[in-house]
Amino acid sequence: MSAAERLAGQLAFLVEIDRLKQVERMTLITGASRRENTAEHSWHLALLAMVLAEHANQPVDVAHVVRMLLVHDIVEVDAGDTFAYDTAGNATKVAREQAAADRLYGLLPADQHAELRALWDEFESGETAEARFARAVDRLQPVLLNHHAGTVFGVGPWFDHGVSPARVLERNAPVAQGSSVLWDVVQACVAELDDAGLFEQAGTAQGSQRRKREVVS
Amino acid sequence: MSAAERLAGQLAFLVEIDRLKQVERMTLITGASRRENTAEHSWHLALLAMVLAEHANQPVDVAHVVRMLLVHDIVEVDAGDTFAYDTAGNATKVAREQAAADRLYGLLPADQHAELRALWDEFESGETAEARFARAVDRLQPVLLNHHAGTVFGVGPWFDHGVSPARVLERNAPVAQGSSVLWDVVQACVAELDDAGLFEQAGTAQGSQRRKREVVS
Repeated sequence: MSAAERLAGQLAFLVEIDRLKQVERMTLITGASRRENTAEHSWHLALLAMVLAEHANQPVDVAHVVRMLLVHDIVEVDAGDTFAYDTAGNATKVAREQAAADRLYGLLPADQHAELRALWDEFESGETAEARFARAVDRLQPVLLNHHAGTVFGVGPWFDHGVSPARVLERNAPVAQGSSVLWDVVQACVAELDDAGLFEQAGTAQGSQRRKREVVS
Repeated sequence: MSAAERLAGQLAFLVEIDRLKQVERMTLITGASRRENTAEHSWHLALLAMVLAEHANQPVDVAHVVRMLLVHDIVEVDAGDTFAYDTAGNATKVAREQAAADRLYGLLPADQHAELRALWDEFESGETAEARFARAVDRLQPVLLNHHAGTVFGVGPWFDHGVSPARVLERNAPVAQGSSVLWDVVQACVAELDDAGLFEQAGTAQGSQRRKREVVS
Protein backbone atom coordinates (compact mmCIF):
# COMPACT_ATOMS: atom_id res chain seq x y z
CA MET A 1 0.00 0.00 0.00
CA SER A 2 1.43 3.37 -1.03
CA ALA A 3 1.55 6.36 1.35
CA ALA A 4 -1.19 8.00 -0.73
CA GLU A 5 -3.43 4.92 -0.47
CA ARG A 6 -2.83 4.77 3.29
CA LEU A 7 -3.84 8.42 3.73
CA ALA A 8 -6.86 7.96 1.44
CA GLY A 9 -8.08 5.03 3.57
CA GLN A 10 -7.70 7.03 6.75
CA LEU A 11 -9.64 9.98 5.34
CA ALA A 12 -12.38 7.71 3.95
CA PHE A 13 -12.81 6.16 7.42
CA LEU A 14 -12.93 9.57 9.10
CA VAL A 15 -15.59 10.90 6.71
CA GLU A 16 -17.61 7.66 6.91
CA ILE A 17 -17.81 7.67 10.72
CA ASP A 18 -19.25 11.19 10.58
CA ARG A 19 -22.56 9.37 10.09
CA LEU A 20 -22.48 8.47 13.79
CA LYS A 21 -23.88 11.99 14.28
CA GLN A 22 -27.10 10.75 12.63
CA VAL A 23 -27.60 7.74 14.92
CA GLU A 24 -30.22 8.61 17.53
CA ARG A 25 -30.33 7.18 21.03
CA MET A 26 -33.28 7.11 23.42
CA THR A 27 -31.71 9.51 25.93
CA LEU A 28 -32.79 13.17 25.87
CA ILE A 29 -30.07 15.83 25.99
CA THR A 30 -30.31 18.43 28.78
CA GLY A 31 -33.07 20.82 27.80
CA ALA A 32 -35.04 17.74 26.68
CA SER A 33 -35.40 19.38 23.25
CA ARG A 34 -34.26 16.31 21.32
CA ARG A 35 -32.71 12.85 21.60
CA GLU A 36 -28.98 12.40 21.91
CA ASN A 37 -26.91 11.09 19.00
CA THR A 38 -24.11 8.57 19.40
CA ALA A 39 -21.24 10.85 18.33
CA GLU A 40 -21.95 13.49 20.97
CA HIS A 41 -22.68 10.67 23.47
CA SER A 42 -19.16 9.32 22.85
CA TRP A 43 -17.64 12.77 23.49
CA HIS A 44 -19.58 13.03 26.74
CA LEU A 45 -18.41 9.59 27.89
CA ALA A 46 -14.78 10.57 27.30
CA LEU A 47 -15.24 13.62 29.52
CA LEU A 48 -16.89 11.51 32.23
CA ALA A 49 -13.90 9.17 32.16
CA MET A 50 -11.42 12.05 32.42
CA VAL A 51 -13.21 13.68 35.35
CA LEU A 52 -14.39 10.59 37.28
CA ALA A 53 -11.38 8.25 36.90
CA GLU A 54 -10.41 8.62 40.56
CA HIS A 55 -13.61 6.75 41.48
CA ALA A 56 -12.68 3.55 39.61
CA ASN A 57 -12.54 0.48 41.84
CA GLN A 58 -9.05 -0.26 40.52
CA PRO A 59 -6.44 2.20 39.17
CA VAL A 60 -6.95 2.69 35.42
CA ASP A 61 -4.98 4.10 32.48
CA VAL A 62 -7.36 6.98 31.79
CA ALA A 63 -6.04 7.63 28.27
CA HIS A 64 -6.78 4.03 27.38
CA VAL A 65 -10.30 4.27 28.81
CA VAL A 66 -10.85 7.44 26.74
CA ARG A 67 -9.63 5.78 23.51
CA MET A 68 -11.96 2.82 24.13
CA LEU A 69 -14.97 5.07 24.75
CA LEU A 70 -14.30 7.18 21.64
CA VAL A 71 -14.42 4.15 19.32
CA HIS A 72 -16.72 1.67 21.09
CA ASP A 73 -19.95 2.87 19.40
CA ILE A 74 -18.61 3.42 15.85
CA VAL A 75 -20.27 0.16 14.77
CA GLU A 76 -23.61 1.95 15.21
CA VAL A 77 -22.94 3.77 11.89
CA ASP A 78 -24.15 0.53 10.28
CA ALA A 79 -25.85 -1.33 13.13
CA GLY A 80 -27.79 1.55 14.70
CA ASP A 81 -28.35 2.07 18.41
CA THR A 82 -30.13 -0.73 20.26
CA PHE A 83 -32.29 0.54 23.13
CA ALA A 84 -31.00 -0.98 26.36
CA TYR A 85 -34.43 -2.41 27.21
CA ASP A 86 -35.20 -3.82 23.72
CA THR A 87 -34.94 -7.60 24.25
CA ALA A 88 -35.50 -8.56 20.59
CA GLY A 89 -33.00 -5.99 19.31
CA ASN A 90 -30.36 -7.11 21.78
CA ALA A 91 -30.66 -10.73 20.59
CA THR A 92 -29.33 -9.77 17.11
CA LYS A 93 -27.05 -6.98 18.28
CA VAL A 94 -23.78 -8.96 18.37
CA ALA A 95 -24.03 -10.26 14.78
CA ARG A 96 -25.05 -6.85 13.41
CA GLU A 97 -22.22 -5.09 15.19
CA GLN A 98 -19.57 -7.63 14.16
CA ALA A 99 -20.46 -7.13 10.48
CA ALA A 100 -20.36 -3.37 11.00
CA ALA A 101 -16.92 -3.55 12.63
CA ASP A 102 -15.57 -5.58 9.70
CA ARG A 103 -16.75 -3.03 7.16
CA LEU A 104 -15.99 0.21 9.01
CA TYR A 105 -12.63 -0.58 10.57
CA GLY A 106 -11.79 -2.32 7.28
CA LEU A 107 -11.63 1.10 5.61
CA LEU A 108 -8.44 1.77 7.61
CA PRO A 109 -4.93 0.46 6.87
CA ALA A 110 -4.48 -3.01 8.40
CA ASP A 111 -2.44 -1.90 11.44
CA GLN A 112 -5.01 0.70 12.45
CA HIS A 113 -7.88 -1.68 11.70
CA ALA A 114 -6.33 -4.10 14.19
CA GLU A 115 -5.65 -1.37 16.76
CA LEU A 116 -9.16 0.12 16.83
CA ARG A 117 -10.81 -3.29 16.56
CA ALA A 118 -8.83 -4.41 19.62
CA LEU A 119 -10.11 -1.42 21.59
CA TRP A 120 -13.69 -2.32 20.67
CA ASP A 121 -13.16 -6.00 21.51
CA GLU A 122 -11.66 -5.03 24.88
CA PHE A 123 -14.69 -2.88 25.66
CA GLU A 124 -17.14 -5.60 24.65
CA SER A 125 -15.32 -8.29 26.65
CA GLY A 126 -15.22 -6.14 29.78
CA GLU A 127 -12.36 -8.12 31.27
CA THR A 128 -9.74 -5.43 31.97
CA ALA A 129 -9.95 -2.79 34.69
CA GLU A 130 -10.10 -0.15 31.94
CA ALA A 131 -12.98 -1.91 30.18
CA ARG A 132 -14.92 -2.32 33.43
CA PHE A 133 -14.57 1.38 34.18
CA ALA A 134 -15.43 2.34 30.57
CA ARG A 135 -18.57 0.21 30.77
CA ALA A 136 -19.49 1.80 34.10
CA VAL A 137 -19.22 5.27 32.56
CA ASP A 138 -21.26 4.17 29.52
CA ARG A 139 -24.10 3.11 31.85
CA LEU A 140 -23.82 6.06 34.24
CA GLN A 141 -24.15 8.77 31.57
CA PRO A 142 -27.74 7.98 30.46
CA VAL A 143 -28.71 7.75 34.14
CA LEU A 144 -27.39 11.27 34.74
CA LEU A 145 -29.26 12.63 31.70
CA ASN A 146 -32.45 10.72 32.52
CA HIS A 147 -32.24 12.02 36.08
CA HIS A 148 -31.90 15.56 34.73
CA ALA A 149 -34.78 15.24 32.25
CA GLY A 150 -36.95 13.57 34.93
CA THR A 151 -36.35 16.03 37.76
CA VAL A 152 -36.41 19.20 35.60
CA PHE A 153 -38.97 18.33 32.91
CA GLY A 154 -40.81 15.28 34.29
CA VAL A 155 -40.10 13.29 31.12
CA GLY A 156 -37.76 10.52 29.98
CA PRO A 157 -37.48 7.30 27.98
CA TRP A 158 -37.84 5.00 31.00
CA PHE A 159 -41.29 6.43 31.76
CA ASP A 160 -42.35 6.42 28.11
CA HIS A 161 -41.40 2.74 27.77
CA GLY A 162 -42.69 1.49 31.10
CA VAL A 163 -39.28 0.52 32.46
CA SER A 164 -39.44 -0.11 36.24
CA PRO A 165 -36.87 1.13 38.80
CA ALA A 166 -35.88 -2.51 39.45
CA ARG A 167 -35.19 -3.08 35.75
CA VAL A 168 -33.10 0.11 35.55
CA LEU A 169 -30.99 -1.04 38.49
CA GLU A 170 -30.64 -4.56 37.06
CA ARG A 171 -29.57 -3.19 33.67
CA ASN A 172 -27.04 -0.81 35.20
CA ALA A 173 -25.59 -3.19 37.79
CA PRO A 174 -22.30 -3.38 35.80
CA VAL A 175 -21.58 0.13 37.07
CA ALA A 176 -20.77 -1.46 40.45
CA GLN A 177 -18.04 -3.59 38.84
CA GLY A 178 -16.29 -0.46 37.58
CA SER A 179 -16.95 1.89 40.47
CA SER A 180 -18.82 1.40 43.73
CA VAL A 181 -18.90 5.20 44.18
CA LEU A 182 -20.65 5.68 40.83
CA TRP A 183 -23.01 2.79 41.57
CA ASP A 184 -24.15 4.77 44.62
CA VAL A 185 -24.82 7.69 42.26
CA VAL A 186 -26.96 5.49 40.00
CA GLN A 187 -29.00 4.21 42.95
CA ALA A 188 -29.51 7.73 44.29
CA CYS A 189 -30.67 9.02 40.87
CA VAL A 190 -33.19 6.19 40.42
CA ALA A 191 -34.46 6.56 44.00
CA GLU A 192 -35.05 10.28 43.53
CA LEU A 193 -37.06 9.72 40.34
CA ASP A 194 -39.01 6.97 42.09
CA ASP A 195 -39.72 9.16 45.12
CA ALA A 196 -41.03 11.84 42.74
CA GLY A 197 -43.58 9.29 41.46
CA LEU A 198 -42.33 9.38 37.86
CA PHE A 199 -42.14 5.60 37.44
CA GLU A 200 -45.68 5.13 38.80
CA GLN A 201 -47.19 6.89 35.79
CA ALA A 202 -45.02 4.88 33.39
CA GLY A 203 -46.28 2.59 30.66
CA THR A 204 -49.48 4.40 29.89
CA ALA A 205 -49.66 6.72 26.90
CA GLN A 206 -52.07 8.85 28.92
CA GLY A 207 -49.58 9.31 31.73
CA SER A 208 -46.81 10.22 29.32
CA GLN A 209 -49.00 12.66 27.39
CA ARG A 210 -50.28 14.24 30.60
CA ARG A 211 -46.76 14.92 31.81
CA LYS A 212 -45.77 16.39 28.45
CA ARG A 213 -48.73 18.76 28.50
CA GLU A 214 -47.80 19.88 31.99
CA VAL A 215 -44.29 20.70 30.83
CA VAL A 216 -45.51 22.70 27.87
CA SER A 217 -48.28 24.57 29.69
CA MET B 1 -13.98 20.08 50.57
CA SER B 2 -15.57 16.76 51.54
CA ALA B 3 -15.53 13.73 49.22
CA ALA B 4 -19.28 14.22 48.67
CA GLU B 5 -18.79 17.87 47.69
CA ARG B 6 -15.96 16.91 45.33
CA LEU B 7 -18.16 14.31 43.59
CA ALA B 8 -21.09 16.74 43.44
CA GLY B 9 -18.91 19.35 41.71
CA GLN B 10 -17.69 16.81 39.18
CA LEU B 11 -21.22 15.66 38.36
CA ALA B 12 -22.49 19.26 38.12
CA PHE B 13 -19.72 20.04 35.60
CA LEU B 14 -20.48 16.92 33.55
CA VAL B 15 -24.21 17.69 33.35
CA GLU B 16 -23.56 21.38 32.58
CA ILE B 17 -21.23 20.68 29.64
CA ASP B 18 -23.96 18.53 28.08
CA ARG B 19 -25.21 21.87 26.71
CA LEU B 20 -22.33 21.79 24.21
CA LYS B 21 -24.64 19.48 22.22
CA GLN B 22 -26.88 22.51 21.64
CA VAL B 23 -24.15 24.79 20.26
CA GLU B 24 -24.42 24.89 16.46
CA ARG B 25 -21.50 25.39 14.12
CA MET B 26 -21.61 26.47 10.47
CA THR B 27 -20.35 23.14 9.12
CA LEU B 28 -22.88 20.67 7.69
CA ILE B 29 -22.65 17.02 8.78
CA THR B 30 -22.34 14.41 6.03
CA GLY B 31 -25.76 14.06 4.46
CA ALA B 32 -26.01 17.88 4.70
CA SER B 33 -29.26 17.41 6.67
CA ARG B 34 -28.27 19.81 9.46
CA ARG B 35 -25.43 21.80 10.96
CA GLU B 36 -22.89 20.17 13.23
CA ASN B 37 -22.88 20.80 16.96
CA THR B 38 -19.74 21.37 18.99
CA ALA B 39 -19.97 18.21 21.14
CA GLU B 40 -20.05 15.84 18.17
CA HIS B 41 -17.40 18.00 16.46
CA SER B 42 -15.10 17.44 19.46
CA TRP B 43 -15.61 13.67 19.24
CA HIS B 44 -14.77 13.76 15.53
CA LEU B 45 -11.58 15.76 16.16
CA ALA B 46 -10.41 13.21 18.71
CA LEU B 47 -10.82 10.43 16.14
CA LEU B 48 -8.95 12.47 13.51
CA ALA B 49 -6.07 12.89 15.97
CA MET B 50 -5.99 9.17 16.77
CA VAL B 51 -5.98 8.11 13.11
CA LEU B 52 -3.81 10.87 11.58
CA ALA B 53 -1.14 11.35 14.28
CA GLU B 54 1.56 9.75 12.11
CA HIS B 55 1.30 12.77 9.80
CA ALA B 56 2.28 15.34 12.45
CA ASN B 57 5.39 17.34 11.53
CA GLN B 58 6.92 16.43 14.90
CA PRO B 59 6.26 13.33 17.04
CA VAL B 60 3.32 13.98 19.38
CA ASP B 61 1.83 12.42 22.53
CA VAL B 62 -1.47 11.41 20.90
CA ALA B 63 -3.31 10.92 24.21
CA HIS B 64 -2.43 14.49 25.15
CA VAL B 65 -3.66 15.80 21.79
CA VAL B 66 -6.93 13.89 22.30
CA ARG B 67 -7.42 15.32 25.82
CA MET B 68 -6.82 18.84 24.49
CA LEU B 69 -9.30 18.40 21.63
CA LEU B 70 -12.00 16.97 23.92
CA VAL B 71 -11.99 20.04 26.20
CA HIS B 72 -10.89 22.91 23.94
CA ASP B 73 -14.41 23.94 22.87
CA ILE B 74 -16.21 23.53 26.22
CA VAL B 75 -16.16 27.32 26.65
CA GLU B 76 -18.71 27.48 23.82
CA VAL B 77 -21.38 26.32 26.31
CA ASP B 78 -21.44 29.97 27.43
CA ALA B 79 -19.61 31.81 24.62
CA GLY B 80 -21.20 30.09 21.61
CA ASP B 81 -19.41 29.18 18.40
CA THR B 82 -17.80 32.03 16.48
CA PHE B 83 -17.83 31.48 12.71
CA ALA B 84 -14.24 31.39 11.48
CA TYR B 85 -14.92 34.16 8.95
CA ASP B 86 -16.87 36.47 11.33
CA THR B 87 -14.43 39.37 11.91
CA ALA B 88 -16.59 41.23 14.46
CA GLY B 89 -17.30 38.07 16.46
CA ASN B 90 -13.65 37.10 16.55
CA ALA B 91 -12.73 40.53 18.00
CA THR B 92 -14.67 39.78 21.23
CA LYS B 93 -14.08 36.02 21.25
CA VAL B 94 -11.14 35.96 23.68
CA ALA B 95 -12.90 37.92 26.44
CA ARG B 96 -16.13 35.91 26.08
CA GLU B 97 -14.29 32.61 26.21
CA GLN B 98 -12.12 33.56 29.19
CA ALA B 99 -15.24 34.37 31.24
CA ALA B 100 -16.80 31.09 30.13
CA ALA B 101 -13.71 29.12 31.16
CA ASP B 102 -13.77 30.73 34.62
CA ARG B 103 -17.38 29.76 35.21
CA LEU B 104 -17.44 26.29 33.63
CA TYR B 105 -14.12 24.88 34.80
CA GLY B 106 -14.86 26.58 38.15
CA LEU B 107 -17.59 24.01 38.76
CA LEU B 108 -14.84 21.39 39.18
CA PRO B 109 -12.65 20.78 42.24
CA ALA B 110 -9.62 23.13 42.14
CA ASP B 111 -7.09 20.52 40.97
CA GLN B 112 -9.25 19.47 38.01
CA HIS B 113 -10.15 23.08 37.24
CA ALA B 114 -6.40 23.77 36.90
CA GLU B 115 -5.78 20.62 34.86
CA LEU B 116 -8.51 21.19 32.26
CA ARG B 117 -7.85 24.92 32.11
CA ALA B 118 -4.19 24.19 31.37
CA LEU B 119 -5.21 21.95 28.45
CA TRP B 120 -7.36 24.75 27.03
CA ASP B 121 -4.60 27.35 27.52
CA GLU B 122 -2.11 25.06 25.79
CA PHE B 123 -4.44 24.65 22.81
CA GLU B 124 -5.08 28.39 22.58
CA SER B 125 -1.37 29.27 22.83
CA GLY B 126 -0.43 26.77 20.14
CA GLU B 127 3.20 26.63 21.27
CA THR B 128 3.74 22.90 21.87
CA ALA B 129 3.98 20.23 19.16
CA GLU B 130 0.76 18.70 20.54
CA ALA B 131 -1.09 22.03 20.37
CA ARG B 132 0.10 22.70 16.82
CA PHE B 133 -1.14 19.28 15.71
CA ALA B 134 -4.43 19.68 17.61
CA ARG B 135 -4.99 23.04 15.90
CA ALA B 136 -4.19 21.48 12.52
CA VAL B 137 -6.83 18.79 13.10
CA ASP B 138 -9.36 21.40 14.27
CA ARG B 139 -8.92 23.26 10.96
CA LEU B 140 -8.78 20.16 8.76
CA GLN B 141 -12.07 18.65 9.95
CA PRO B 142 -14.41 21.39 8.62
CA VAL B 143 -12.48 21.32 5.33
CA LEU B 144 -13.18 17.58 4.99
CA LEU B 145 -16.89 18.07 5.75
CA ASN B 146 -17.19 21.13 3.51
CA HIS B 147 -15.47 19.19 0.73
CA HIS B 148 -17.97 16.36 1.21
CA ALA B 149 -21.03 18.64 1.25
CA GLY B 150 -19.68 20.57 -1.75
CA THR B 151 -18.79 17.63 -3.97
CA VAL B 152 -21.84 15.48 -3.10
CA PHE B 153 -24.57 18.09 -2.55
CA GLY B 154 -23.15 21.27 -4.11
CA VAL B 155 -23.75 23.24 -0.89
CA GLY B 156 -21.72 24.57 2.02
CA PRO B 157 -21.19 27.52 4.37
CA TRP B 158 -18.27 28.97 2.38
CA PHE B 159 -20.47 29.40 -0.68
CA ASP B 160 -23.42 30.72 1.34
CA HIS B 161 -21.19 33.35 2.98
CA GLY B 162 -19.15 34.36 -0.05
CA VAL B 163 -15.82 33.13 1.34
CA SER B 164 -13.18 32.94 -1.42
CA PRO B 165 -10.72 30.04 -1.94
CA ALA B 166 -7.85 32.40 -1.04
CA ARG B 167 -9.53 33.30 2.27
CA VAL B 168 -10.14 29.62 3.09
CA LEU B 169 -6.45 28.86 2.52
CA GLU B 170 -5.35 31.90 4.54
CA ARG B 171 -7.63 30.94 7.44
CA ASN B 172 -6.45 27.33 7.43
CA ALA B 173 -2.73 28.00 6.93
CA PRO B 174 -2.02 26.87 10.56
CA VAL B 175 -2.62 23.32 9.34
CA ALA B 176 0.83 23.51 7.70
CA GLN B 177 2.45 24.20 11.08
CA GLY B 178 1.04 20.98 12.49
CA SER B 179 1.28 18.75 9.42
CA SER B 180 2.56 19.44 5.92
CA VAL B 181 0.83 16.23 4.73
CA LEU B 182 -2.57 17.44 5.99
CA TRP B 183 -1.93 20.91 4.54
CA ASP B 184 -1.65 19.21 1.15
CA VAL B 185 -5.06 17.63 1.83
CA VAL B 186 -6.57 21.04 2.62
CA GLN B 187 -5.19 22.53 -0.59
CA ALA B 188 -6.44 19.59 -2.68
CA CYS B 189 -9.96 19.85 -1.16
CA VAL B 190 -10.21 23.59 -1.84
CA ALA B 191 -8.83 23.19 -5.37
CA GLU B 192 -11.39 20.50 -6.18
CA LEU B 193 -14.29 22.68 -5.00
CA ASP B 194 -12.85 25.61 -6.95
CA ASP B 195 -12.46 23.52 -10.12
CA ALA B 196 -16.11 22.49 -9.77
CA GLY B 197 -17.05 26.18 -9.91
CA LEU B 198 -18.69 26.21 -6.48
CA PHE B 199 -16.89 29.33 -5.24
CA GLU B 200 -17.81 31.27 -8.39
CA GLN B 201 -21.49 31.20 -7.52
CA ALA B 202 -20.75 32.26 -3.92
CA GLY B 203 -22.03 35.38 -2.22
CA THR B 204 -25.30 35.64 -4.10
CA ALA B 205 -28.50 34.45 -2.51
CA GLN B 206 -29.65 33.44 -5.98
CA GLY B 207 -26.65 31.17 -6.52
CA SER B 208 -27.11 29.55 -3.14
CA GLN B 209 -30.84 29.08 -3.61
CA ARG B 210 -30.35 27.70 -7.10
CA ARG B 211 -27.92 25.07 -5.84
CA LYS B 212 -30.27 24.09 -3.04
CA ARG B 213 -33.14 23.59 -5.48
CA GLU B 214 -30.96 21.42 -7.66
CA VAL B 215 -30.16 19.21 -4.69
CA VAL B 216 -33.81 18.84 -3.74
CA SER B 217 -35.11 18.26 -7.26
